[in-house]
Amino acid sequence: TGLVLVKNPHLDLMEEDILYHLDLGTKTHNLPAMFGDIKFVCVGGSPNRMRAFAQFMHQELGLAGDGEDVADICAGSDRYAMYRAGPVLSISHGMGIPSISIMLHELIKLLHHAKCRDVTIIRIGTSGGLGIEAGSVVITDTAVDSSFQPRFEQVVLDDVVVRSTELDKGLAEELLACSREIPDFPTLIGHTMCTYDFYEGQGRLDGALCSFSSEKKLEYLRRAYDAGVRNIEMESTAFAALCGLCGLKGESCRFHLL
Amino acid sequence: TGLVLVKNPHLDLMEEDILYHLDLGTKTHNLPAMFGDIKFVCVGGSPNRMRAFAQFMHQELGLAGDGEDVADICAGSDRYAMYRAGPVLSISHGMGIPSISIMLHELIKLLHHAKCRDVTIIRIGTSGGLGIEAGSVVITDTAVDSSFQPRFEQVVLDDVVVRSTELDKGLAEELLACSREIPDFPTLIGHTMCTYDFYEGQGRLDGALCSFSSEKKLEYLRRAYDAGVRNIEMESTAFAALCGLCGLKGESCRFHLL
Repeated sequence: TGLVLVKNPHLDLMEEDILYHLDLGTKTHNLPAMFGDIKFVCVGGSPNRMRAFAQFMHQELGLAGDGEDVADICAGSDRYAMYRAGPVLSISHGMGIPSISIMLHELIKLLHHAKCRDVTIIRIGTSGGLGIEAGSVVITDTAVDSSFQPRFEQVVLDDVVVRSTELDKGLAEELLACSREIPDFPTLIGHTMCTYDFYEGQGRLDGALCSFSSEKKLEYLRRAYDAGVRNIEMESTAFAALCGLCGLKGESCRFHLL
Repeated sequence: TGLVLVKNPHLDLMEEDILYHLDLGTKTHNLPAMFGDIKFVCVGGSPNRMRAFAQFMHQELGLAGDGEDVADICAGSDRYAMYRAGPVLSISHGMGIPSISIMLHELIKLLHHAKCRDVTIIRIGTSGGLGIEAGSVVITDTAVDSSFQPRFEQVVLDDVVVRSTELDKGLAEELLACSREIPDFPTLIGHTMCTYDFYEGQGRLDGALCSFSSEKKLEYLRRAYDAGVRNIEMESTAFAALCGLCGLKGESCRFHLL
């Protein structure tokens, strides 16, 4: 029925649920009143960009006022920033899987407590492109790990649980159709590779450490391209796994900066 | 000779090194003039706390002015915040291994370009305590992974490289000796466990997902305690591995909030 699925039997037994890193909670805030009408959540790494995105949405939706004074709903915490424009929530998630995971756990509980229905979540931001034109937008069909496998290995206590990283194919096609109305941005659907490290993990030659040769890097990136990878970033597998498990219709769209 | 070690043969061949996430670079900034006299680097997750720490250091060191107007050296980027007070640099690193790794790669290159000598780096912040009094400070002797092993598994392209997570034992003892002058904070030396996830990874029962029983959680945490773990956080193994490899004398001190 379009509700967000929380898969934790302990949660409904708790007297109070504190969303620590968002500075929100079930006793301190009326979450259904604040968020019950949310239909879209857009997430990205940088707080400033997510603020600019909320201002942009405010204007696009023709809401009253100029949107310049959009308030940070999580102002009491400096871990994440959250803004809203009509039915759209815009949240920053920092960099890397652990950082986005904390935010997603708390966001999913927020949507659950607020009794939101039919919520679509879209990750936006930048990424490194692979064999594609600079300025392209990649819409992810499947997030893959550094072995090009569509899986997210989550350590739960000392067990490794493997989770699927499929995203919503229908939503990907819808976004691709939208992109056809915007001529300036070449847009494609492809696999997105998610790494735990920006420098050595992505084969960059400009980190403080570099323990591989340029040849090995090229050979690896060629194999990634052949496996269907078109861009590289640091959050997509966790995003796909958590959204999939909790019944959130999710997609990832990344702009390939130079 | 006390210099920071950069282990990347490509770096000295580059015409310009841009520290993207710090908004600094070798062509745009005179790094030796700006940072050459830095002797201590303190890092922690939250930008606001690292600002407050710089203001505190400013006062403790008896520097001119009240330190209230300390400027963010990385103001052009919202990924990290950086402040200085005399020979002390105070930098935020966000949450999780990928986030601290990006900052450390760029910090280590910064100290290298600035020709800093004999730099000590200390990680400060909060963590979850294990079988210790609330309000205790844990000084890490060794960072361990979720199997209680003193190792950091770094994925380099598609290889897994295992790195040591020993920290500086002499520095740990020095910090413990300092703590004896401050009666209000029980301080101990112990192992620190580093996880990739705050909710399921740390056995918390209040995430959006919880795929283990309370019994399994208790059994796991008991084994962790028996292995010498006294607190749990999300950055220490990467911190210890990178500092160790690059010749930075490093320690981690974490305050156990209730």
